[in-house]
Parts: sequence; C-alpha cells; structure tokens
Amino acid sequence: MAGPVQSIERAAAILRLLAGEPRRLGLGEVAASLGLAKGTAHGILRTLQHVDFVEQDAETGKYQLGAALLHLGTSYLDINELRSRSINWADALAARSGESVRLGTPLEGMVLVVHHVFRPDDTLQTLDVGALLPLHASSLGKVLLAFGAVTVEPVLEAGLEAYTRHTLVTPERLTRALAEIRDLGWGSEVQEMSMGEAGIASPIRGHGGLVVGAIGLSGPVERICDGHGRPRPRLVTLLREAARAVSRELGAARW
Amino acid sequence: MAGPVQSIERAAAILRLLAGEPRRLGLGEVAASLGLAKGTAHGILRTLQHVDFVEQDAETGKYQLGAALLHLGTSYLDINELRSRSINWADALAARSGESVRLGTPLEGMVLVVHHVFRPDDTLQTLDVGALLPLHASSLGKVLLAFGAVTVEPVLEAGLEAYTRHTLVTPERLTRALAEIRDLGWGSEVQEMSMGEAGIASPIRGHGGLVVGAIGLSGPVERICDGHGRPRPRLVTLLREAARAVSRELGAARW
Repeated sequence: MAGPVQSIERAAAILRLLAGEPRRLGLGEVAASLGLAKGTAHGILRTLQHVDFVEQDAETGKYQLGAALLHLGTSYLDINELRSRSINWADALAARSGESVRLGTPLEGMVLVVHHVFRPDDTLQTLDVGALLPLHASSLGKVLLAFGAVTVEPVLEAGLEAYTRHTLVTPERLTRALAEIRDLGWGSEVQEMSMGEAGIASPIRGHGGLVVGAIGLSGPVERICDGHGRPRPRLVTLLREAARAVSRELGAARW
Repeated sequence: MAGPVQSIERAAAILRLLAGEPRRLGLGEVAASLGLAKGTAHGILRTLQHVDFVEQDAETGKYQLGAALLHLGTSYLDINELRSRSINWADALAARSGESVRLGTPLEGMVLVVHHVFRPDDTLQTLDVGALLPLHASSLGKVLLAFGAVTVEPVLEAGLEAYTRHTLVTPERLTRALAEIRDLGWGSEVQEMSMGEAGIASPIRGHGGLVVGAIGLSGPVERICDGHGRPRPRLVTLLREAARAVSRELGAARW
C-alpha cells in the first residue's frame, strides 16, 4: 500500500499554519516555519492559490487562506450527521434552558464546535461554529476525554495550559476529574477557560454506543451554576435528556 | 518556474467533488468522476483522511468532507478583510432597512456569501455564509459581473441556467442588464433565482478603486420592491450609502 502523498501533507500543513496566524505570511515565513526549501513552499503555495485555497495579497505578496475553504467548510457542516441530527434538539434545549447550546467533536487534539445555538435573548453573541476549544479546559472537551472519544495521553504530553487559575493543569487533577465525569455521566467546567464563564456537557453516542461528540450548555457562571458554584440540576437534567435524544437519533441503543 | 503540484490539484478536485454531493462517495465513484486510477485516488484520499480533510464512514467505507475544513473555513472568515471591515456597516444597514444583508465575493464562477446579517425580526432564517450563488441570477453576482470583478465570458460559455421564468437566460439580456447596472451604479434581481424573492446589490471597491465584492439586501419581493415590481428607492439609498462606507474603509478613494 502506498504511503501518504507528501505534497498534500505539506499543503495541509501550510493551510493549518495560515489558519493559526491572525495575519498574512510571506513565502520566507511559511518555508521557515515548516522547514521547507523556499522553492518547494512556493510551488505548493502557487498550486493552493490556483485552487483558491490560498490568496496572495497584491500589494505585499503575502499569503492568507482562500475563499474555497469557506465553501468546503460549510459543505462539511451540511453533511455532518452529528450536526444535522442534533439541530432540532439543540434548538429545543436552548429554548427550554434559556442558555446557549454548543456541539463539539474532536479535531487535532482540540474540540471543534460544529453547531451553536445562541442563548434565546437579545444579547450580542458571536457564533462559535468552527472554533477550536481546548480539551482539558472546556466541558465539551472534558466529556470527550472522559468517554474515550479522544485519548488523554497526547493531551497530557502536550502540557495543560492554564487559561485561568481554575484550569486543571496537573495530570492528577485532570485524571480525577475525568473519572468523576465517567461516574456522573456528564461534565462541567467552571471558570476553567475564562473567568466568569461556565459550561456543562454530556456525551453523544452513535451507532454501537461509541461517543462521537458532546453537547453542552455554556454561559455566565451565575446562570449555569447555583450559589455554591455547582451546575444547576435543572440544566443538567435538560442537557442529559437532549444528549440521550440525539444519541437515539444517531442509532445508539437506549441507555 | 515549477508548474503546479499535480497531487494537490487532484486533492482539491476530490474535495470539491465531495462538497458538491449531498451524500458520501465510494472510492470507485471518486476515481471515475475525476478520471483517476483507483490506486491514485486511494492514495490521495488516505492522505486527505490523515490530515482530517476527509472522513471515511466506518460502516460503508465511503468518503465525506472532514472536520479540519470547517476550522479552515472559519479561519478564512476571521481574516477576510472585506468581511471584517463590513461587519458594523452590514449590521447598521440591516437595522436601518429592516432587511437581510449579504456580502459576496467571486469564487469559481459563482458568488460566495462571506457575511449574512439576518432580517431584524423573529422569523426563521438560515445562515447563507459559505453558500455559492449563481452570478447571473443573483443581485450580488450581477453587480460583480457588471463592475468587472469577474469576467462575463466564461459565465456565458457555461450557459445561463434558468432558475425561474424571470432568470436572464440569453447573453443579450444579461449583457444589457449589466450595462444598465454600470449606468445606475447598483443592480437588482427580481424573482430571477427564486419566485417570490428579490434582491438589490451595490459594488464594494477596495484600494485603487477595483471592485472586490458586493453588498446586498434581499428578501420577499413585496418587501424589496414597490407595487410596480421596482426596488424601493429608500432601500437603494441605504444600500448605496453602506457600500460607499465599506469601500472607504477598504481604502477606496471617495467617489
């Protein structure tokens, strides 16, 4: 069996590099970041530009991501089964709970948000679809880790970044938290990624019972948690009902 | 100078093929659609899977787009200057006009929607960001064609698909409509893509005065047009003011 196609792997690495930067990058920066010869990087960039995956700024000659990726990304959403089967349940959960709902799936050692229903009020909210959240500091991520949708070892090896003073930054604390989530069947994150914010999440199982994603509620800590800083039981109940309903839709057996 | 990297072009073609299908595709279908040997297609698909650009269904072995594309697509949006510089103006335009606002840029012979502000009411609306609209049957597209952001010849060669009985399907009618748009400085589409729907659009110019995109209002024909089926002057005025403001932000000279 043939090995992976090197030029495609390099092209993907360039796209990932450009996605990780808030600014355009020059040819030299791209080549240096990936340890490629300038000529090699240039050939790949020109091809990526040709297929509209990359755009080159006319003035500076620097590169940024291209428009074709937006269409591919939304096409991914259109055929994503986790998302399409969850949409109605996520809407109902947001309406019943009065809170914002997000769905996550593992991607490259993080959680990719594949659906986001705004909290049903008039406050200004920004769409999180397509955003990547840290596994160890988000309720969606902790649930994916706890239920084996992602392996925990690489996360521990990569190091547990402290987002706030509440982030679980030692392997012991994270491991203990994951065991607790497995016991409870749901997980929470209280001011671990951002002060003043909290979230709860529950696993979504697909055909055969495997965890394929997570659904969660998130928002200001005083909305998600009670006066003791614990997630409100009413929200947990609504969330778990929704997670079970979506899992059923995806073909998981009753549990 | 080296030519384009063939394997990357093929990988892009496979992704485009998968994006155009509402269902998963098998290896044989992918290979046949692109005229590739099965082994070649398989090597590319495996590499695309390895970088999360493609997912393989465990049960059927069929392929679909992968999660990494969603993150790349939203990263494109984050750094898209047309969009970031337009967001506040688009919000204000939707609020003032009471109508839905969309921004478009050319992609692969179509219009890519890069921003969409819902009509400020409680009706159910679906997000069009990432959608591709036909150039000849959308107000955004007609404006992009009229002001040279896309060349018209390939559109004529590809044939003008009739979406409704009002779609401009002959080169003569489209050419005449584009000349009129150039005269007026804005364009409209009345039930040309979908019966009951209409839109108006105005060009957005960037540095040096080149048209880089279009901004438009769209909605039910009775909201966008008056009793004679003509776009309401009040909406046209609000739209053109917004287009000028965004162009100014993008560095276009006053005009």
